[in-house]
Amino acid sequence: MASTNPARGTRDFLPADVRKREYVIGIIKRVYESYGFEPLETPAFENLETLTGKYGEEGGQLMFKILKRGEKLVQSASFSSSERDESRTLNDLADLALRYDLTVPLARVVANNRNKLPVLFKRYQIQPVWRADRPAKGRYREFYQCDVDWIGSTSPVVEAELISAAAKVLSELGFHDAVFRLNDRRLLTGILDACQIVTDLHSDALVALDKLDKIGSDGVAKELAARGISSTAADALLDLFSTLSTMNNAEKLTHLRSFVGQNEDGVAGLESLEQILNFGISDLKLNVDPSLARGLSYYTGMIVEVNVPDLAGSLAGGGRYDGLIGMFGKEQIPACGLSLGLERILVVMDERRMFPPEIAESTPADVLVTIHAENTAAESLKFAAELRAAGIRTTVYPDADKLGKQLKYAASINVRAVCILGESEIAAGTVTIKNMLTGEQQTIERASAASFIRGESD
Amino acid sequence: MASTNPARGTRDFLPADVRKREYVIGIIKRVYESYGFEPLETPAFENLETLTGKYGEEGGQLMFKILKRGEKLVQSASFSSSERDESRTLNDLADLALRYDLTVPLARVVANNRNKLPVLFKRYQIQPVWRADRPAKGRYREFYQCDVDWIGSTSPVVEAELISAAAKVLSELGFHDAVFRLNDRRLLTGILDACQIVTDLHSDALVALDKLDKIGSDGVAKELAARGISSTAADALLDLFSTLSTMNNAEKLTHLRSFVGQNEDGVAGLESLEQILNFGISDLKLNVDPSLARGLSYYTGMIVEVNVPDLAGSLAGGGRYDGLIGMFGKEQIPACGLSLGLERILVVMDERRMFPPEIAESTPADVLVTIHAENTAAESLKFAAELRAAGIRTTVYPDADKLGKQLKYAASINVRAVCILGESEIAAGTVTIKNMLTGEQQTIERASAASFIRGESD
Repeated sequence: MASTNPARGTRDFLPADVRKREYVIGIIKRVYESYGFEPLETPAFENLETLTGKYGEEGGQLMFKILKRGEKLVQSASFSSSERDESRTLNDLADLALRYDLTVPLARVVANNRNKLPVLFKRYQIQPVWRADRPAKGRYREFYQCDVDWIGSTSPVVEAELISAAAKVLSELGFHDAVFRLNDRRLLTGILDACQIVTDLHSDALVALDKLDKIGSDGVAKELAARGISSTAADALLDLFSTLSTMNNAEKLTHLRSFVGQNEDGVAGLESLEQILNFGISDLKLNVDPSLARGLSYYTGMIVEVNVPDLAGSLAGGGRYDGLIGMFGKEQIPACGLSLGLERILVVMDERRMFPPEIAESTPADVLVTIHAENTAAESLKFAAELRAAGIRTTVYPDADKLGKQLKYAASINVRAVCILGESEIAAGTVTIKNMLTGEQQTIERASAASFIRGESD
Repeated sequence: MASTNPARGTRDFLPADVRKREYVIGIIKRVYESYGFEPLETPAFENLETLTGKYGEEGGQLMFKILKRGEKLVQSASFSSSERDESRTLNDLADLALRYDLTVPLARVVANNRNKLPVLFKRYQIQPVWRADRPAKGRYREFYQCDVDWIGSTSPVVEAELISAAAKVLSELGFHDAVFRLNDRRLLTGILDACQIVTDLHSDALVALDKLDKIGSDGVAKELAARGISSTAADALLDLFSTLSTMNNAEKLTHLRSFVGQNEDGVAGLESLEQILNFGISDLKLNVDPSLARGLSYYTGMIVEVNVPDLAGSLAGGGRYDGLIGMFGKEQIPACGLSLGLERILVVMDERRMFPPEIAESTPADVLVTIHAENTAAESLKFAAELRAAGIRTTVYPDADKLGKQLKYAASINVRAVCILGESEIAAGTVTIKNMLTGEQQTIERASAASFIRGESD
């Protein structure tokens, strides 16, 4: 007998799970649409060459690749043993790969539909992505991303509106303690330059720096040394962050302006951050955090991450990537985006019990209609249709089982009322309604059943 | 440069497409929920062994399989040339496969969650499935299925409610000419028995019969002969369908009752059909069609297909499958379901122009707010936030470009109004609102802008 578990690292979403997910997704959609973002959907898999080389070495290893089919597979697999090159054969067995994120497909779509899409394209996209990561608590092989991106402008208005929209989503969901940490890739370059770290070692320095939260100043110092960065440079860098850590945003910017001096990248990054802050986005805790690095290599300007105190990782993250779309088209098109982590949002909302009662305690139906006997089933179905026409979610018990069994089932699915349609009720044009909370039952005119049920349940 | 097309047989859904899809999906969800069906979602891929052997030989070939990863792949691929068995190696390269339909995953979930799910489980599921079919007009490699199934009862109430719910979906979408063709697998068995066709040739006969619509009576006669069915039997079969073709449902049932005589399967099928018809499901054209066979082998009772005149294929189809869930668990659990073809529904709705104007002519936003100069951008963002708080979908032009350019962009995305916030407006606490339909513009108090825009657009 086959196993009945879902594949490793994936989950079945039973009705109660789906309702919570759809509640969150509904709010995300509504808020993003209020900002003028439009929905986009792309296929689950892409041609392998579309994704290859976009996610670094790790990304290549974590990608789910799809086996070629039919003759093509036989051809790719059938090398004679003499001419056989193991790694070439393995690379040649797949022609498609599952979506790894939503940004690369967006870049492809924009390059492919330049004439169909507005010059400034504001889109959101809420779809699953797949990564062959080792499953762990809160880490799945299939998980949803909720991306929002604005294509076609280098204006800091883009950053400000994206941050404002994401902040609005989180506050509508009930997060009032989210902190937006803000930095700029160019400012990081300026800082590393000012610390006399050579360009070739910048990415090493960023990898180490990214761990400041986790391993602290001493840990980062060790890692910087291990990566060949001089202790003078490391000291300068860590001193800077230590100095900045007690300052407010304005003080940080002033201090950094003198720290980076005339460095072009540093100045550009600082100007962009200042502009974003000057928009005074409301209802939002926005912290300039020059130690924020973020993993992905395609960022070119502002980067942002969103945290809450009771979650180790981030709730959202993003940044400006002005170079990615050009990889797919003739044109270099600027872009900026932000991704909400749906799975993490759901975990925190569950732990904090943030779902409204109608979601947390939802039921398959408001009402169950019983069946008294085979020859009265048609009448029960007709009555159920009457209730549905009046806007009441109604299920029917399918068999003429004993009433006790039907009531037991009704209790198991938590309907609020059971409508009993026996022979006497059918003859008299009435229905007996049992309130499943109080246990009381009352026989009333069939025509007034819907309004009676609505009144009871209010 | 990489190609910017989506993978063969798949599609990108641009915003206008997504809105149409979500409109249809929204109606399907609402109607199914009003009947007491609950949402379920399963992963995009399943363990290969979960799907293997469930869809016949063709299904096995059309499945998208996912390549093993890392060491496991190297091990599976590295047979020395002497011990190498080509077909074994190819079968061994994959461990997962993309979802091929929504029924087998449902059966797995039911077997896996028997204690978490209600005894009678009514679920709907709207998700994509993937088949490596040759792409053709209206045939894709990624397409959505909208399934509704009722697990745990053999009562004909199940069939009646499923048909009623699907009919309600179609009528809410605006289909008023859908015909539900109804048959029963047991009745088909009874008919074939009565025609003296031996059991071993039943599935051959059904394959031929399934083409009656397409190739006509003569074509089916030839195919029956080719499949080794005697001309006497073939004549009896085709005579029967010719006789039935001019009858109404009640006449058909009477005629068939005498045709199948005491045949147990035939009698059981007829009784089930009679019971379903006797429920008198309203607002629905329901035709008994004893020639309906349907491809899938797992059906055990009622089968149904839904057609409209201007579509060659069917809009929906389904049936009872009391044996499938038992393949995954210790228990044999009866089930019945129906699947709506989302892609076909969308094609017909597009051709018939059935989408309401708010969907067909939707825009990214109601209003665009201009930016006069860099130092007034913050004020424009603040004003946009005011409009959003009043429920107006508002986008902001991101740069202080010339007003003409900003208006041109506003026209290209079809907003109904542009809010111009120049220096004089900001100083006076006003805003100039340009109606993009009439071209008229008017300067009004900022506080009354939202209600003015709502009035204009009504």
